Amino acid sequence: MVGKEFFTTLSVSEALAGFLPRRRTGIETVSREVALGRVPATPVVSDAELPGFARSTVDGYAVRAADTYGASDGLPAYLDLVGAVRMGVAAGVAVRPATAVQIPTGAVIPTDADAVVMVEYTQATTPDVIEVTRAVAVGEGIVRADEDVAVGAQIAPAGRPLRAQDLGLLAAAGVIDVEVCARPRVAIISTGDEVVSPSTRWLSPGQVRDATASALAALVSEAGGEPSMRGIVPDDVEALTKTLESALQDCDLVVVSAGSSVGARDETTAAVESLGEPGIYCHGLAVKPGKPTLLAECSDVPVIGLPGNPLSALVVFRLVGLPVLRLVGGITVPPTEPTTPATLSRAVPSAAGRLDVVQVQLRDGVATPLFGFSALLSLLTTADGYVVIPEAATGVDAGTAVTVTMYR
Amino acid sequence: MVGKEFFTTLSVSEALAGFLPRRRTGIETVSREVALGRVPATPVVSDAELPGFARSTVDGYAVRAADTYGASDGLPAYLDLVGAVRMGVAAGVAVRPATAVQIPTGAVIPTDADAVVMVEYTQATTPDVIEVTRAVAVGEGIVRADEDVAVGAQIAPAGRPLRAQDLGLLAAAGVIDVEVCARPRVAIISTGDEVVSPSTRWLSPGQVRDATASALAALVSEAGGEPSMRGIVPDDVEALTKTLESALQDCDLVVVSAGSSVGARDETTAAVESLGEPGIYCHGLAVKPGKPTLLAECSDVPVIGLPGNPLSALVVFRLVGLPVLRLVGGITVPPTEPTTPATLSRAVPSAAGRLDVVQVQLRDGVATPLFGFSALLSLLTTADGYVVIPEAATGVDAGTAVTVTMYR
Repeated sequence: MVGKEFFTTLSVSEALAGFLPRRRTGIETVSREVALGRVPATPVVSDAELPGFARSTVDGYAVRAADTYGASDGLPAYLDLVGAVRMGVAAGVAVRPATAVQIPTGAVIPTDADAVVMVEYTQATTPDVIEVTRAVAVGEGIVRADEDVAVGAQIAPAGRPLRAQDLGLLAAAGVIDVEVCARPRVAIISTGDEVVSPSTRWLSPGQVRDATASALAALVSEAGGEPSMRGIVPDDVEALTKTLESALQDCDLVVVSAGSSVGARDETTAAVESLGEPGIYCHGLAVKPGKPTLLAECSDVPVIGLPGNPLSALVVFRLVGLPVLRLVGGITVPPTEPTTPATLSRAVPSAAGRLDVVQVQLRDGVATPLFGFSALLSLLTTADGYVVIPEAATGVDAGTAVTVTMYR
Repeated sequence: MVGKEFFTTLSVSEALAGFLPRRRTGIETVSREVALGRVPATPVVSDAELPGFARSTVDGYAVRAADTYGASDGLPAYLDLVGAVRMGVAAGVAVRPATAVQIPTGAVIPTDADAVVMVEYTQATTPDVIEVTRAVAVGEGIVRADEDVAVGAQIAPAGRPLRAQDLGLLAAAGVIDVEVCARPRVAIISTGDEVVSPSTRWLSPGQVRDATASALAALVSEAGGEPSMRGIVPDDVEALTKTLESALQDCDLVVVSAGSSVGARDETTAAVESLGEPGIYCHGLAVKPGKPTLLAECSDVPVIGLPGNPLSALVVFRLVGLPVLRLVGGITVPPTEPTTPATLSRAVPSAAGRLDVVQVQLRDGVATPLFGFSALLSLLTTADGYVVIPEAATGVDAGTAVTVTMYR
């Protein structure tokens, strides 16, 4: 985005494709035990093969496959039972021609055995001899020493947050620490003369508690970031500029929820304009709700100015803030959003060129749009999810099949 | 499940419907600031109305609507400008007939005003008079004092984990603490003579590092539980019984990953049988992978015995363990799993009456089943998600439309 400065309203798709700040978090080493959801900075490779030894995949008898060829119920192969392998230790016995060694699932395949016959296809004739009633092929009942993971194989890709099973494989490979991208530190600044702390017990007339900061902090945490609460700044360019400057010092992303008046938005813009290069990327987004959104880059740090009302602020932050957060934090494989197919209960109007985010309740496959003044946060808490009406559409008819993105 | 004891293999749907342990976690009070994902034990209600005062939804002028009736570009209404409201304080001025008061978005509606005209539909004639060029209806441009939330209204339901926007509304309502269900404490026990700690640098022949415990801990944390790592127990009924007894003392759910041999599974069963009532619920699940699954209830605490190999253990724990964890932890509105529609690249066989969980890679809408010996954990880390072949199906043809449940 170097050198690009737009002072116009952009479409959301333009902003998502074009607003690509250069900021990246550093690399840090964390213990595997606390690495759930962390983002490997480089691919994790195994320095050993897994499982590390040829293992039996069944309970049965290790044999030479050739000794079982032609075996059947009517004409079993008779093999001398020459020992048993215990779990977790070396086999301690070899399988010579016409012999078998008892082996449990997961135990070490004895020397010179090349297959394992399941116990179901055997019978003990005497304590020293077993009957095999079914032929096995070479390799049957055996997992190779490197069949799960070869030496040097990738066991977790860079850029994809570590999942439960990834941590399992890392544990199996004996990985103790992982090099990950540091969590993006996200400054959350609220502005507005009317906004007071949520801990304010009694409100004076005209005051509202800060709803946006708490909700943004939750979204940041869920997406793998570390919220840094910067408090509430009055509608004053100088005060906001000072708070912004401080946030730019030690954060990787700055989010400002503007006061609700037009004046407050102008102050956010003025404060951002007074800071670093290349400055403002866009001044408005063609999205409803959320038009008065500011995207900027100050001293390499992305700054997102959100609309004044909590609902719009949260809609926009999900839409354009989380992708920026992931970019900064090294996530190249974004999570799949939970979605549900549904039928729209009634028509939703939309202007062409504008993205509409419609909150819906979902019952028995029917999505009912929740309309209301966009400052009503209860709309968002009542919603089960939302439907996006794309920029090209000029509205959606009742009965249309839609995809609802679910709030978990 | 009182009095029901099955010693047979159950279908997954039977187990999900029937295995409903009575155990519930206690109630605890947590600060709203750390309540993301926590589960309200009772509905949270607001003790005040929100926004708490009639607010302007636009930048403009507070008026009496009747004074604007008939106003147009050609025939504007002229109103005396008698003051301005500032953000965050009482209006301090009343709107008498034929007057207007300047007001920013979000400010307090002055006494006797019943509408706000947007600034776009006004012109300043002199410093003391404005022209209104469009009529407004009563209530236009105003959000009522209780329009977002009424006194006593529910602002978060019981049983649904708190989402970002819920925390926002709680903050707006001045909620400081929330009564939530305590996180279920989940004992994670590994068994098997061959299993050693993941921190073991050098393995002796036949040893494998414990992959399952780390992955289970991650799944438990993601689902809102608190893993309690109980270490690795050798294949010995007495040792396992002792570990189980200790876990039952201070945990709400006990998960045992059996060693991989049949003997190890028998030992888990024997240990569970030696404990409390009503005991074992089922001895096997009609699921692939994962058949050797044990569901039991000991001294009111659910006990889940998982298959020996890590892949099967994780598949089964997702399938039947997480629902039990949610039940115990008071979650009545389970999260929506992220899913993606896809076309199956090739046929998948399945036995009728058995649920098949098929790991898949997803590329451009095509789901490619990953087959392999089910002990290979790398199958699960390579997978993007999985497809469930329902119990009624006897296989799925290539080209079939399927739903892939994504690993985030």
